Amino acid sequence: MRNPHSNGNLRKLQADGGGEATEENGFVDGVILGLDGGATSTVCVCVPFFPFGDRFPEPLPILGRAVAGCTNRNSVGETAARDSLEQVISEALVQSGSDKSDVRGVCLGVSGVNHPSDQEKIENWIRDIFPSHVKVFVQNDAIVALASGTMGKLHGCVLIAGTGCIAYGFDEDGKEARASGGGPILGDWGSGYGIAAQALTAVIRAHDGRGPQTMLTSTILKALGLSSPDELIGWTYADPSWARIAALVPQVVSCAEAGDEISDKILVDAAEDLALSVKAVVQRLGLCGEDGTTSFPVVMVGGVLNANQKWDIGKEVSKRINRYFPGAQTIIPKVEPAVGAALLAMNFLSS
Amino acid sequence: MRNPHSNGNLRKLQADGGGEATEENGFVDGVILGLDGGATSTVCVCVPFFPFGDRFPEPLPILGRAVAGCTNRNSVGETAARDSLEQVISEALVQSGSDKSDVRGVCLGVSGVNHPSDQEKIENWIRDIFPSHVKVFVQNDAIVALASGTMGKLHGCVLIAGTGCIAYGFDEDGKEARASGGGPILGDWGSGYGIAAQALTAVIRAHDGRGPQTMLTSTILKALGLSSPDELIGWTYADPSWARIAALVPQVVSCAEAGDEISDKILVDAAEDLALSVKAVVQRLGLCGEDGTTSFPVVMVGGVLNANQKWDIGKEVSKRINRYFPGAQTIIPKVEPAVGAALLAMNFLSS
Repeated sequence: MRNPHSNGNLRKLQADGGGEATEENGFVDGVILGLDGGATSTVCVCVPFFPFGDRFPEPLPILGRAVAGCTNRNSVGETAARDSLEQVISEALVQSGSDKSDVRGVCLGVSGVNHPSDQEKIENWIRDIFPSHVKVFVQNDAIVALASGTMGKLHGCVLIAGTGCIAYGFDEDGKEARASGGGPILGDWGSGYGIAAQALTAVIRAHDGRGPQTMLTSTILKALGLSSPDELIGWTYADPSWARIAALVPQVVSCAEAGDEISDKILVDAAEDLALSVKAVVQRLGLCGEDGTTSFPVVMVGGVLNANQKWDIGKEVSKRINRYFPGAQTIIPKVEPAVGAALLAMNFLSS
Repeated sequence: MRNPHSNGNLRKLQADGGGEATEENGFVDGVILGLDGGATSTVCVCVPFFPFGDRFPEPLPILGRAVAGCTNRNSVGETAARDSLEQVISEALVQSGSDKSDVRGVCLGVSGVNHPSDQEKIENWIRDIFPSHVKVFVQNDAIVALASGTMGKLHGCVLIAGTGCIAYGFDEDGKEARASGGGPILGDWGSGYGIAAQALTAVIRAHDGRGPQTMLTSTILKALGLSSPDELIGWTYADPSWARIAALVPQVVSCAEAGDEISDKILVDAAEDLALSVKAVVQRLGLCGEDGTTSFPVVMVGGVLNANQKWDIGKEVSKRINRYFPGAQTIIPKVEPAVGAALLAMNFLSS
């Protein structure tokens, strides 16, 4: 490993921290890469290694950060996924002034990793990039998101609702459970895609006479630059990307805020469905204890939950979760998922 | 045009019909090609031309019939769609012993034709195949299906429920209306895809604790050769073809027949949604008359409606339609949609 004193970024950090690098404060221990492979983009951060369980400096120093395209091979195919991965790692390392030999561990949280074989394939892609001593961990993006709210500890439940949605949890013994996360065909109605697809359906139903009129019609047609609901059919066929559909969530929220009952019902149903996913995970893991009141964290991540609009989906979900479990502590992470991945790598490297 | 007496198939037909070809009986008037471009395959039939409004012989003589792949360019792309079209036309002509110069008109009913520009593009593909005097008509597959139940007359409503679903209707003045038919994203819950997607969702919900247990779990896993509901996620991602999902409808029906409440509810909801689509079309066109009791045909087409199982979705839909409109006459066509297309071509050529 290179002497960190030769590294401008690391030296600056140590100066900020007020001390020289020593074996004890961990700065000489190299760097960690944390990656968040979402449905639309991939983020890579480079942070200094700290032994897990120690008090991390707040905020955690970020030495480098880069963004690339989607790394879900189910969505973009293997070649594009692999290329994005290599690119984002290389950029984050360059930014941090580090090189591959400084890296102690890499943790990637990626959507679409549901089987050991998926995990192994992506782990091998990353291993190919680094020297053999580098530890590589590939985890479902939900686990990484949980770590981003618990500063690396795998306990509690995480709910992600962005383009897709999933609830994932761990009990103290490392037992895990998930709910939702199956994608559009398998009915993730609380996801951004699910919300927007319901809204598009409501527009079509109002247009062909099956359903009541809704403000969504004019709002969505305007947002898409279309002149008639008939054109929505061609629009949805033209590009099956889920993110493109999910991008209509703000229109649904603004209609609900303006009093549109159909939009309000779509958002209420989504909040119910998201809370139900958390409930299923918590009950299977017994996180709420025998009497149902034990405290546990519920980390809430993603654009659907953290949009901070007047019609606040995240708040509606929290309310429902607390109705089920008075001990649930809902947390909005202070660090992004990629940092969660880095914290998780430190957890794994220290245990 | 070739003399039909030189054509073996035509001669045989005329012998069956008990008479020589004359200008009056229409056999010398050449042939018509009718095409049905469905979601999974394309059928082409070659029939003799009869002036529309005359009494057609029953059954209508079929001189040639061929089947090829999907011709929906939204699903398979332009090149594959065009290739399938040329292949199926050529095979039907060879079978009938006719050639291109015998053809008076071609009518293609194709799914995914929603705009004049779509229609024009496909019309041009077909025009390129034939001499310039051949009349070419491209219609939404729903219109062709209607014609298959009304022997070519465009009046009443048709409901198609196969892999997809759509309701389409015409009043006596040629005014038209449609409902549903927007595809999976736009909520066609009465389609085979919609029914099967709801069933897969029910399996996932039972598995992750969000929903009640259902017989669908073991039945669907067995049908797909999977060992756990977790594997359904990979299965749905592996191939996004709607027909592959819709192929699970028989499993949903058999579970409902065996008393599974979840399956029963999925089928009841689908029947409601399909009847609602018909209701929307009938009301917009005023087919039921001012007092709601006027008689009109409702042609019911597709695997979901005509499966003839104990749990009979078509019967449930008919029951609901007749509850809305006592004058509705539900019809299951005696001829296939491709023949409907041929009848429609005769209607257009005679008017």
